[in-house]
Order: sequence, then C-alpha cells, then structure tokens
Amino acid sequence: MPQTPKAGTPPHVSPLAPGVIPDVPPIEGVRIATAAAGIKYPGRTDLLLMVFDEPAAVAGVFTTSRCASAPVDVCRRNLSVGRARALVVNSGNANAFTGKRGKESTRLTAEAAAKAVDCSPEEVFLASTGVIGEPLDQSKFVGLLDDLAGEAKADRWRSAADAIMTTDTFPKLLSRTVSIDGVPVTLNGIAKGAGMIAPDMATMLSFIATDAPIAAPALQSMLVEAVAPSFNSTTVDGDTSTSDTLLFFATGRAQARGCAPAVDASDPRLAEFRSALNGLCLDLARQIARDGEGARKEIVVTVAGAVSDYSAKRIAMSIANSPLVKTAVAGEDANWGRVVMAVGKAGEEADRDRLKIFFGDVRVAVDGERDPDYAESVAAAAMKRDTIEIRVDIGLGDGRWTVYTCDLTKDYVAINGDYRS
Amino acid sequence: MPQTPKAGTPPHVSPLAPGVIPDVPPIEGVRIATAAAGIKYPGRTDLLLMVFDEPAAVAGVFTTSRCASAPVDVCRRNLSVGRARALVVNSGNANAFTGKRGKESTRLTAEAAAKAVDCSPEEVFLASTGVIGEPLDQSKFVGLLDDLAGEAKADRWRSAADAIMTTDTFPKLLSRTVSIDGVPVTLNGIAKGAGMIAPDMATMLSFIATDAPIAAPALQSMLVEAVAPSFNSTTVDGDTSTSDTLLFFATGRAQARGCAPAVDASDPRLAEFRSALNGLCLDLARQIARDGEGARKEIVVTVAGAVSDYSAKRIAMSIANSPLVKTAVAGEDANWGRVVMAVGKAGEEADRDRLKIFFGDVRVAVDGERDPDYAESVAAAAMKRDTIEIRVDIGLGDGRWTVYTCDLTKDYVAINGDYRS
Repeated sequence: MPQTPKAGTPPHVSPLAPGVIPDVPPIEGVRIATAAAGIKYPGRTDLLLMVFDEPAAVAGVFTTSRCASAPVDVCRRNLSVGRARALVVNSGNANAFTGKRGKESTRLTAEAAAKAVDCSPEEVFLASTGVIGEPLDQSKFVGLLDDLAGEAKADRWRSAADAIMTTDTFPKLLSRTVSIDGVPVTLNGIAKGAGMIAPDMATMLSFIATDAPIAAPALQSMLVEAVAPSFNSTTVDGDTSTSDTLLFFATGRAQARGCAPAVDASDPRLAEFRSALNGLCLDLARQIARDGEGARKEIVVTVAGAVSDYSAKRIAMSIANSPLVKTAVAGEDANWGRVVMAVGKAGEEADRDRLKIFFGDVRVAVDGERDPDYAESVAAAAMKRDTIEIRVDIGLGDGRWTVYTCDLTKDYVAINGDYRS
Repeated sequence: MPQTPKAGTPPHVSPLAPGVIPDVPPIEGVRIATAAAGIKYPGRTDLLLMVFDEPAAVAGVFTTSRCASAPVDVCRRNLSVGRARALVVNSGNANAFTGKRGKESTRLTAEAAAKAVDCSPEEVFLASTGVIGEPLDQSKFVGLLDDLAGEAKADRWRSAADAIMTTDTFPKLLSRTVSIDGVPVTLNGIAKGAGMIAPDMATMLSFIATDAPIAAPALQSMLVEAVAPSFNSTTVDGDTSTSDTLLFFATGRAQARGCAPAVDASDPRLAEFRSALNGLCLDLARQIARDGEGARKEIVVTVAGAVSDYSAKRIAMSIANSPLVKTAVAGEDANWGRVVMAVGKAGEEADRDRLKIFFGDVRVAVDGERDPDYAESVAAAAMKRDTIEIRVDIGLGDGRWTVYTCDLTKDYVAINGDYRS
C-alpha cells in the first residue's frame, strides 16, 4: 500500500471547503469547553462538553442501524425525559459494539458529567465517534469534566466543531438569526461527517442549539421535518454508521427578551424559525457531503417525474451510491450510461424510453437514447465544475427528490484502507 | 488525475487469476469463430459467433434492470421459441439505452446471422457488452458473419472467452465432463465480468454449452437453480448492468452416443450433470469476483444464524457491498467494526449482543464485543491471504448464505474514472 493519510492528520483540506470558516455567535444559555484527552491521537481536541445552565428542551434523531452504539441507546432513553443539562461528545472511539463495558462506560461518563454540572444522569446526552469495537476507556476523560464545566464559555462554538472531527478536513459550523414575535433568536449548528455517511443518518454527529423558547415535542417535530430533505438525503458511501446522532437543544433564554414560548410546531410564529432550521440542516448536510472522504466534487442528484417522492428518492439514492457514477464524476466524465444503469437497478418504476438525463444544463439523453444535439465537449465543460448536478426526469409522474453526495476518488480508498493503523 | 489504465489494455493481470488458463475441449455440435471488428478498440477480438449446426435447446437468465439493453430484449423474446442456431456477441458497446436505433441494430444483426447460418432470426441470440448509450454500428461487423459462419471451428473456446472480455484481466473458461446413463457428456462455460457486477446478474455475460440431450424447460429449471448461489451471489460494486445475460445451450449430440434425452429437470439420471452445472456456475462466478476491477483479494462472506436464508443473503450482500469493508480488506485491516456496521445497516433482524464475527479462522468478536482472546497479530496474518473469509453468526436462526466479492482498491477508481476515454 502507498502512503496513506492518518485519520488524525488529514493531508489536505477538501477543495470544496468554504473559503472562510464562519464566526458563530454565542447562544444564550449554552457554554462550551473542549479538551485534548488523548482518546486516540495525542495533542488534538477530542472531548466536548456543552453545558446548559438551565434545563434545555431537547429533540433528537438517530441512526437506523440495528447495531446502534451505546451512546445512541443512552440518548434515545433520555429523550423521553426531554430535558438536557449537558452534552458530552468524544471523537476517536465510537463506543459501538463494546458490549457490557460500553454500557458501563456510558454510565460512568453520564454520572461524572451529572456531578460536574449538578444534574441527574438522565439530563446528560452522549455521543461518540471513531473506531467501532474497541472499548472506550472513559477514565481518560471523566476526570476532566469537573474542570471543563467550570471553565466552559459561551463563545467557543468553533472549538466545539473542531473537537468532534474525525477524518473531516474542515470544521462545520453555521449560525442563523431570525425573529419570533419580533424578538431575534439564534440557531447554531455544528456537524461532523466524512465516511460511513448514508441515508437515515450517517457517521454523522450534529448538534444544533437555539435560545428560542420551544417545547421539546415541537422541537422534535420540526427536527424530523428538517432532516428528511437534508441529513437523510445525504450519502457519501452508502454505509450507515452505528452512531449517527443529531440533537437539537432549545435553552429558551429569548423568553427573557420577550419571546413567548411556543409549544406547538404548527405555531405560525415559527415560520421563519422553521425555514432557518431547514436551511441550516441542509447547509450542514451539504458540508458533510462536500467533505466526504476523498471528495473532490459535490454531486447533487435530482430525480423528477417519478411515480412518487419515495420512488424519486430511491432512484436518486441508487444514482448517488453507485460507485460507477461516482468514479465517472471523479474522472470528469459525463458518463450518463452509468446513470441509466443506476436508474435501472433501483427497482423503481422507470421506462427506458421516457428517460431524460441532464448533467448541469446539458441534456445528454432523451427518449431512451443519446440526445441528438449532444456534444461531448459541452458536457465535458459542465463536468469541470466543483458541483455536478445530475438531473433525471423519469417521465411517469410528479415524484421528486434531491440527494447530495460526492465523487469516489482514490483518496477515499487510501483513507479507508488504512484508517485504523 | 494520475495515469489510468484503458479498458482495452489492462495494465496487469489480477493476482487472483488462475495459474493456468485451462484447455477446454470441443462440444459436439458447437462451432466458434471470432473477429476483430474494431467496434471500440482496433486490433483486439470483439466479435464472437457461436454456431449450432442443429437447433440447440436453450435456457437463459437476464439482468433485473428496468432499463435492460436491446439484446436482452431480443433474447427474452427468442427464449419462448427455445431453439438456438446462432449466438452473436460483441464487446466494446453494450447497445443499451440506444432507443430505436438499438432495436434496429439488433434486428439487422439477427437477420445477418440468420442468413449466414441459414436459420430464422428467432433462432439467433445476441449479447453486447461495453459502453452504454452510444449507438452500436452493426455495419462494422454484420458483413463478417457469413465468412465467420463458414470458418467456425469446434476447438476455439479459448478465443471465444477472449473475444467477450472488456476490462477483464484474464479469460474465464471452464469444462466439466460427467456421465448420464454411463455416456460421457461435456459442459463448457465462458464468462466475462469485471465492473457493474451485482446480485441478480451483473455486467456479466456467460455462455454455457453441453452436448447432453436435455429439453429447454429442464435446462431452464436447472439453470435458475444453479444461478442463485453462484452468479446471483456475486458482487463487485453493487452496480447492476443493463446487459447481464447467461445463456445455456444443449446440442443433444450425446444422444447419438446412447444418451437418452432428458425432458424433466427432476430426472434422477441428471444428478451428476446438475452437480457439475452448479459447480461450473460457482467457479465462473468466483472467477468474475476474483477479476473484479482493481481486485487484489477475493472476499467470501458467509452469514449463518439469520432468521432465514433470504435474510442471511441480504446481510451478506450488505457486507459484501460496503465500501468500508472492501477498502479495509484492501488495506489488510481486520476491521470487523465495519462488518458490524454493515450488519446493522442491512435492515434485517440482528441482535448486537449475539453477533459472532470471524476473519478466516480467527474469531474477532463475540457476544456484542471484541473477543477476549482477540490478538491483532493473528487477525493481521489472516488478512494476508488472497481469499479473505468473513463469517458472521447472527445467532437467531438457521438462515445461511454465502456471497462472493473482491476488495475495493485505488485501481477500481482509476479504471472507472477514465473508462470511456
């Protein structure tokens, strides 16, 4: 094997990274501290503590894996309480498939965090990302939580985004400010992704917080809605992690500034907020695709004209997960024949002789054959862009969906062929 | 992009190729001719004509793609006649997604072949493999068929296997001789694969012929049975081609040597024959996996203890198609955490805390965590082999299935990132 990059030291930053990593303002009621606990690599931050000084409302969505990690089990259980006082995240070890020791590790971590912020363990949320199957030695970091709780500060969202990275090449964070009842409220989000990214969550962690006063059931409802076209429509390699976690916290501090609490997701005052949440989730999800392991190009696949939205999504995912489509994009090859293949294998209703396929604005195929006006040079030019839009019209109905992914390069193989060493 | 190999000139032979390409004897009643028609690359054979001097019984199975190629449509239609006098195969162009022109091309090819061997076009079977979506110009080769029919010879199975290759790095051919009623009969098979290999057939062509006198319905029944654990349990990249075709011809010439015709697949005289057919299909299918694009290692995934065979196959396929599992094997990394991930994402019944996972003979995980006796060095040694056996015991039932695939290397990306150029 040739030299391969280490998970701890990405050799480059994705060419699709944002030009500037944005500044993110504080969220009232949220304090943050990070540490380098040496969980896997020495000298890089791998521990995040987020403290909610007053109990925050909390919502969450998780991996669909049948082999979910121990921290996912904990979060699912604690969501029924619906109140958060602390979030502890470590990178470097996923605490997944670690059996009884894994459960014990989450119990000890939650107890230590509860003691550090003076709450019950049921108000502590946990997430872990990294290698699967190796016992997580919580003794490396539980002793740090007391000090971290004391020193946590509001203006540390950037360090939070840094601490949760694994093979990510850039930190992913974002902020939106909107108003409810004329009162400005802020939404901050961070995320990490890279490999094992697939529909229905991925090796993906994301944490969103707001100072808006919104009850947990309303948060949950808005979150589920926001996730469908964003995180759950993103795929890097079709592999679904055991650890996917998206948590959404609302501290409610804006209430002190005159924002009346919202208890129902259908509250019309939430329109702008909901739209900001949707946009934030989509932006974070696309950043994850754009930082897929080895990614050089983002691929946006839109399928229209399917018999249903569900069918459109299944076809779009079939295209987005096709190694042959992804390698063609890596090679800047407008190889729409492979798109036909991926439509065909999706198992959804499709009629070869009605398909239309576009790369960017270039229609390459129509009525079951190559577009008579097709010019390879024009398509080749479209393939030079950073973001490649593949659009397919099935020609049978109104179903429509968009999915986000990246190309498949030799760097993906290099990164994953030597991830553990 | 670095230098990439061309489809026409594979840079190396798979390290998993057989040491010696076997000699294959003639099948009575089958004559073969090949030509270099320049369909895509000059100077390599890309046209195969197989002639059955007397009508042969024929059976076939095909791609499940909703966008099947024009030649697949033709074969499906002609199977209802159940008689074959000629097979015409070209490599370099799949004649898939080529609309009306594609149909016209198959019509003209079948007519030319029918004229060359003096039969009806319904007795001509066609297969094409190569690029999708580019019109196939049959005028490049239909003029050759007359001469080919005249010069075809029985002892040319090796040239037949060569002529159908695309990105294959070695020809795949095989022969078995067994007896029916004490009369020796022979089964020959050739195949091509490489990329777009997935369950329920693949960019895979395979042609099997025998001199045994077996009626078409019995052939079909035995073929369907033989395909399930072999070709339909093989995957390279999860991509299903538009063109997968497996045809099985029986010339019946052994009847003249005293072998009574078999009309029913359950005929007990066929036991040895059936077993040879199953073995031949499995061997050819494994050769395809071992010659997957960029393959350096064969991976044999066996799932046992699932709630049903179907469930076992779905889990095995999830493992076999996981880019993270395949890149780990490429890196000789016994990363069983990724196997857990792939079990979890399959969506089939599984209990994290009952799983057992083996790499070769090394049990790496048991009861939901790493095997207490696990030693990285022992597992690492198991990963050095050419064939990596991954065994998973789900611990819930009696369902069992085995799937064959290969690792995912940078060469796969290189080959497919520049396939068309």
